[in-house]
Amino acid sequence: MSLFQLPRKVFFQRDIIESLGEILRKEGIGKVLFVSDENIYSLWQKRINTALSNLHFDVFTKVFPEPEVQYVEEVSSRFIGKKYDGIVAMGGGSVIDFSKSLAVKLSNPEKNLREVNPFEDLDLNIRLIAIPTTSGTGSDVSFGIVLSDNGAKLALGNYDLVPEIDILDPSLTPVDPKIIVATGIDAFVHSFEAIASNASTVFTDALAERAIETIFENLKNATENEESAKDLMHISATMAGIAFSNSGTASAHALGHSFGATFHVTHGTSVGLFLVPSILFNSQDENTRKKYLRICKILNVQSIEDLVFKIEEFFRSVGQPFHVRELGLSKEIYDSRIDDLVQLAMRDSELAFNPVIAGEEDLKKIFAENY
Amino acid sequence: MSLFQLPRKVFFQRDIIESLGEILRKEGIGKVLFVSDENIYSLWQKRINTALSNLHFDVFTKVFPEPEVQYVEEVSSRFIGKKYDGIVAMGGGSVIDFSKSLAVKLSNPEKNLREVNPFEDLDLNIRLIAIPTTSGTGSDVSFGIVLSDNGAKLALGNYDLVPEIDILDPSLTPVDPKIIVATGIDAFVHSFEAIASNASTVFTDALAERAIETIFENLKNATENEESAKDLMHISATMAGIAFSNSGTASAHALGHSFGATFHVTHGTSVGLFLVPSILFNSQDENTRKKYLRICKILNVQSIEDLVFKIEEFFRSVGQPFHVRELGLSKEIYDSRIDDLVQLAMRDSELAFNPVIAGEEDLKKIFAENY
Repeated sequence: MSLFQLPRKVFFQRDIIESLGEILRKEGIGKVLFVSDENIYSLWQKRINTALSNLHFDVFTKVFPEPEVQYVEEVSSRFIGKKYDGIVAMGGGSVIDFSKSLAVKLSNPEKNLREVNPFEDLDLNIRLIAIPTTSGTGSDVSFGIVLSDNGAKLALGNYDLVPEIDILDPSLTPVDPKIIVATGIDAFVHSFEAIASNASTVFTDALAERAIETIFENLKNATENEESAKDLMHISATMAGIAFSNSGTASAHALGHSFGATFHVTHGTSVGLFLVPSILFNSQDENTRKKYLRICKILNVQSIEDLVFKIEEFFRSVGQPFHVRELGLSKEIYDSRIDDLVQLAMRDSELAFNPVIAGEEDLKKIFAENY
Repeated sequence: MSLFQLPRKVFFQRDIIESLGEILRKEGIGKVLFVSDENIYSLWQKRINTALSNLHFDVFTKVFPEPEVQYVEEVSSRFIGKKYDGIVAMGGGSVIDFSKSLAVKLSNPEKNLREVNPFEDLDLNIRLIAIPTTSGTGSDVSFGIVLSDNGAKLALGNYDLVPEIDILDPSLTPVDPKIIVATGIDAFVHSFEAIASNASTVFTDALAERAIETIFENLKNATENEESAKDLMHISATMAGIAFSNSGTASAHALGHSFGATFHVTHGTSVGLFLVPSILFNSQDENTRKKYLRICKILNVQSIEDLVFKIEEFFRSVGQPFHVRELGLSKEIYDSRIDDLVQLAMRDSELAFNPVIAGEEDLKKIFAENY
């Protein structure tokens, strides 16, 4: 069975943040917990306070990536009983993920976050409103949370955590080309992976294919802060997010997660490094090969070989590394960690959606060849 | 601003109707009004009663197309105060539209249906669950209602009327090739119109373009009741529905509505007749022309002229008429009604979304040339 869990409303317009209060009031939301990080909040504090001036709201900004379960519990204990109608999560993936965790605890203070899973309903009694400030993670429309549990990564998910309202305002996105590229490549890889996933459908493919095309055409201009390109990057990241959240991702994510965690490399950059090796590996499967050939047609190339060249050219045009060696990591150090990389990737849940079953030897070969 | 109003959950699987009770209970829905028509209910009564056996439910099946406002009011008065958690609408567009109207009246018995509009929230307190049994109308994901008021057509809409849960079970769709074609062509035209609409976005375009391709490739096999083709037609109709409900339709709808109402021709057949004339008219606009050229690429043709041939060939392959004369209507009678057709089309709200402003003379020319 395919289940598509979607945001109920997506608002998309530059500067729509100014209407945030009005949107929330129209939705019957009068009291909110506004969650952000220090950086984003300091940037947009004035706009936010003006927009929310007719609502009751508290602000929390002490958010960090992949927070410890215990920290989420401590934070949530401060807000339990405050009867918020909703949590407004404004930020990148970490802020939105953190807000999803808070929603679980504020709805049900007894709930053990470690037990959140895709199969048991959470019955949230607080509404989630996402305002993504990067164009990449898809966290605004996806069902996952990444936490830490005594230092170990804890990836959880539940369909109830897909935010109900998504507010896409490209005016809030970064101007730093490095962040634009890392997040844009993340969305680009999400799209390829959603298409390769063995749980993909014509619905997720439609969104993912268009996202690939739009990102390919606009990421370079977005790095130059061209407004219409940034607008299109912002909606494309959400389209890619809807696609992968409803189909799963695949091997580039398992490999990239493992690489990023081991060498402390940004998520988007890491998964980008393993996109082409995944395409080549998954092309063994006839059906997946046909799907890649559809992307060839969209990007006006004739073969998967040409598609690889096109992706390399695209990556080079925006400064995304194509091979591990470009990061300045020595071959000796990299090679010495390959067994660990393989073990970590083998444990990644995303591998379950890969169209070709990948064993340890396969992953070892991919890691080794991609230096 | 673009607002995408989406169903919160879409379930897509053949025979998922058997799990209807389980899905509703998981959603916290324990008491429902089940709305259908006599024909659909008699076909699937056993499956429905089995699936809903653990829920409280009442059944209403006296639904007719474009019902009088007064009739909806009479029917709703029977169910007010029964405290349903939801209305399950199982049927074609008429059943789903009727259920949307009932949801308005059961939520707010004082509400005058004639005053429903896109700008004032309806604050429904009853949840809408759609189970479309045709692959075409998109009513399962769209915001419109068509009623009659003392014989005059009343087209209303509000975003709150987009059903929250959409259950796509292709096993419930018709086996009669004529219905499969009329509804499939409806979805095909929805897709073209969503793309042409001046409120289209990359999100609606993505879904509409893929729907065009999928319908083009599967409608013929669907008429032969090939299961996978019918599955793909069912999801494509919903994708086209999400697209047009969030972008608006355009001139083929205004012209087709007028023609269908005047000569009592099925909706899908009527709008299909005016698809190509609309494409040719709207190609004047450079941006729309570029969008049609994207469809050319998808359907592997080189020019808009070739696209027209391709559509004609497609229509002929499934038995959809391409010109008015093929319906057996005499030229004298048709010509004598052209002024009325123009007046009716000019009043159609869909014309507001057409990318090229169409005046009376334009519509007259299109009607005259399309005999």
